[in-house]
Amino acid sequence: MTAAGGEFAAVDLIRIKRDGGTLSDAQIDWLIDAYTHGAVADEQMSALAMAILLRGMTPAEISRWTTAMIASGERLDLSSVPRPTVDKHSTGGVGDKITLPLTPLVAACGAAVPQLSGRGLGHTGGTLDKLESIRGWRARLTNDEFLAQLRDVGAVICAAGSGLAPADGKLYALRDVTGTVEAIPLIASSIMSKKIAEGTDALILDVKVGSGAFMKTIDDARELARTMVTLGTAQDVHTVALLTDMSTPLGLAIGNAVEVAESVEVLAGGGPDDVVELTLALAREMLDAAGLPDADPAAALADGRAMDSWRAMIRAQGGDPDAPLPDALETEVIRAERDGYVAAMDAYGLGVAAWRLGAGRARKEDPVSEPAGILLHRRPGHPVRAGDVLCELRAEDAARIPAARDLAASSITIADTAPSAVPLILDRITP
Amino acid sequence: MTAAGGEFAAVDLIRIKRDGGTLSDAQIDWLIDAYTHGAVADEQMSALAMAILLRGMTPAEISRWTTAMIASGERLDLSSVPRPTVDKHSTGGVGDKITLPLTPLVAACGAAVPQLSGRGLGHTGGTLDKLESIRGWRARLTNDEFLAQLRDVGAVICAAGSGLAPADGKLYALRDVTGTVEAIPLIASSIMSKKIAEGTDALILDVKVGSGAFMKTIDDARELARTMVTLGTAQDVHTVALLTDMSTPLGLAIGNAVEVAESVEVLAGGGPDDVVELTLALAREMLDAAGLPDADPAAALADGRAMDSWRAMIRAQGGDPDAPLPDALETEVIRAERDGYVAAMDAYGLGVAAWRLGAGRARKEDPVSEPAGILLHRRPGHPVRAGDVLCELRAEDAARIPAARDLAASSITIADTAPSAVPLILDRITP
Repeated sequence: MTAAGGEFAAVDLIRIKRDGGTLSDAQIDWLIDAYTHGAVADEQMSALAMAILLRGMTPAEISRWTTAMIASGERLDLSSVPRPTVDKHSTGGVGDKITLPLTPLVAACGAAVPQLSGRGLGHTGGTLDKLESIRGWRARLTNDEFLAQLRDVGAVICAAGSGLAPADGKLYALRDVTGTVEAIPLIASSIMSKKIAEGTDALILDVKVGSGAFMKTIDDARELARTMVTLGTAQDVHTVALLTDMSTPLGLAIGNAVEVAESVEVLAGGGPDDVVELTLALAREMLDAAGLPDADPAAALADGRAMDSWRAMIRAQGGDPDAPLPDALETEVIRAERDGYVAAMDAYGLGVAAWRLGAGRARKEDPVSEPAGILLHRRPGHPVRAGDVLCELRAEDAARIPAARDLAASSITIADTAPSAVPLILDRITP
Repeated sequence: MTAAGGEFAAVDLIRIKRDGGTLSDAQIDWLIDAYTHGAVADEQMSALAMAILLRGMTPAEISRWTTAMIASGERLDLSSVPRPTVDKHSTGGVGDKITLPLTPLVAACGAAVPQLSGRGLGHTGGTLDKLESIRGWRARLTNDEFLAQLRDVGAVICAAGSGLAPADGKLYALRDVTGTVEAIPLIASSIMSKKIAEGTDALILDVKVGSGAFMKTIDDARELARTMVTLGTAQDVHTVALLTDMSTPLGLAIGNAVEVAESVEVLAGGGPDDVVELTLALAREMLDAAGLPDADPAAALADGRAMDSWRAMIRAQGGDPDAPLPDALETEVIRAERDGYVAAMDAYGLGVAAWRLGAGRARKEDPVSEPAGILLHRRPGHPVRAGDVLCELRAEDAARIPAARDLAASSITIADTAPSAVPLILDRITP
């Protein structure tokens, strides 16, 4: 029933969604506002989130839900930045360090990249956790520091302040403990509310597909990508999505410090082929979206401009780009038991193994180990002989290695013939 | 993931049910115990309840869930009572005062009736609220008082103590605010855990069907009845269910004091036909289940034994059976607008109208009005002429009448021809 003053009862809105109905704009606005201010209780929102997960939402509901989450907090004004702004968001994967080389690379090519990032939870790593293995680097900036760095350096990677979409911050923590993370409408509105509130002109989405991603199938990934592109476009943010493979980890390094080191290799003009390919593909999308189609990111990697931009970005946040990265004290290698070809390196299994070595956290409050992780010595398609090293496990504490060893070993498949090549970029979704 | 010591993570159990899986005995035992002790949070249990509502539970899951809820508290021992014990539970309806005449009637016929009752919430009334309109009567007894009265009088209607199935008490309050009341597995386990913990030898269930009931269709009602009969039988409680019509209110009185007055009429050998019919049908089921098939409840109503039992039961709990019942100060009648026959008197609409007059409560903390309610002057099938009184609205506060008037009027349909008669007892479910 409707109470006085245009308000609603939470239980009635839960019932509507539970029974497969549609929430009105006024109902969604009231719900997000009341939840932000505590008038709708966590136990009511979690029941609603489960109903949304199992019943879905219409495009109009998702759009209004996102708008209401943006309206729960501030929306940054980047108009003082003298360059076009463009950001990238990845839905998360194993070995996905692309933000690290990509942000300074795109800045080196003339755009400004206001990258507000998060921390890792579960088997996927977090950009801020990775950068914190650089001595002195700090993730937390004030809004003024953030804007000044965006104007001066053109590249910022920092923690999102609590003023952006606070309803999302509260809801995300709730979903994490109530089994309601995997709802496409809630994933899409969570990502897009934060990115739109961040104030960027354009946004490129990297939607991961495969065992190491939230989206296990191309159909789910495409639905998520389309939903997010629609949300961004409706809010006047130029939004394009790439669907990219996450059945295999990206690059050879999985962890924190090891991923920084691999990113620096890419910025120096080297690095694994797949990391370079995806970094350049995303850089071209970002530069196109920023109105800079003639920029040449490959040249910026080759001639040192991207590395200069990286060093300026790290220094601006107190970090020392020349400091040695923390190294693991305990290592153990896994060797091939037979001759053949590497047929598969399962991203999920290797992500969980790296997590067990200390690279990830089980609870938000936990610290992560900077040096822990996995270095792959082979990639799918490579020939191997019995006894060859397939990968190296790294940990600060030797006691963590046994729980990771069998899982890492069983995540790597050797076969008699080489697997057929899988494309890295699977699809492109435009408005 | 499984934690040490045979424990589980709540979020993993939620995910299993969300994805349509089945919880194991160990998982259910852990969950109910952890919820009772606060280790599983309300927001996790409400997400699980929504998943159960939308995904269902297997018979084995419902059985274990019920057993775990019983095990969360004490189970009463009625072995000191020198008569067979038998109880009745109604799933709740409008004008459903049957417990009031039935309990002393069955006691008068030789069984002992340990009736632990609840309060009304929403449009259905509560037995304790009704009895509290008798001056001096108190709902709360200690376990010792309860047992002594059961031995001495053979009839007790009182509040269930907090020691019986405390997990259910906590879960029921949560379901009420999270839109998860209407899950058949949770309704069945909630009712049966309390009734089994109460210690009765036998139980007759009155499962209501129709607009004024929780179960709107005969199929849902039959599923609930079968689920509960199976649960009772598995716990060695002789359990039988009747499915009875709740599309029309029972009797002519809807409210608190007015329902007590109608119950006393039945105990005096009079009262509306439908109330007498259902009281006698349930009494015969209870006496059969108690091993007293030769008892004659109709005779006990006619010869005053049931009334004597009622007076003893009320006195034992401090009530004065001769005190005048509180009367409404403000009344208004609704009249027929045309000639014809009463085609329908909608139980839900009239229940909500009585609630708005003050007979019910919107929140658990609210008081109810003793005299408020509705007295029907006609029943479906009766002929009427324009201007005849259809019903009388009663309230302590005249301001409450307008919000009830239109709803009550629109709940009564007049047609040119008499409706076909609907049977009161629709089905009987045995083990």
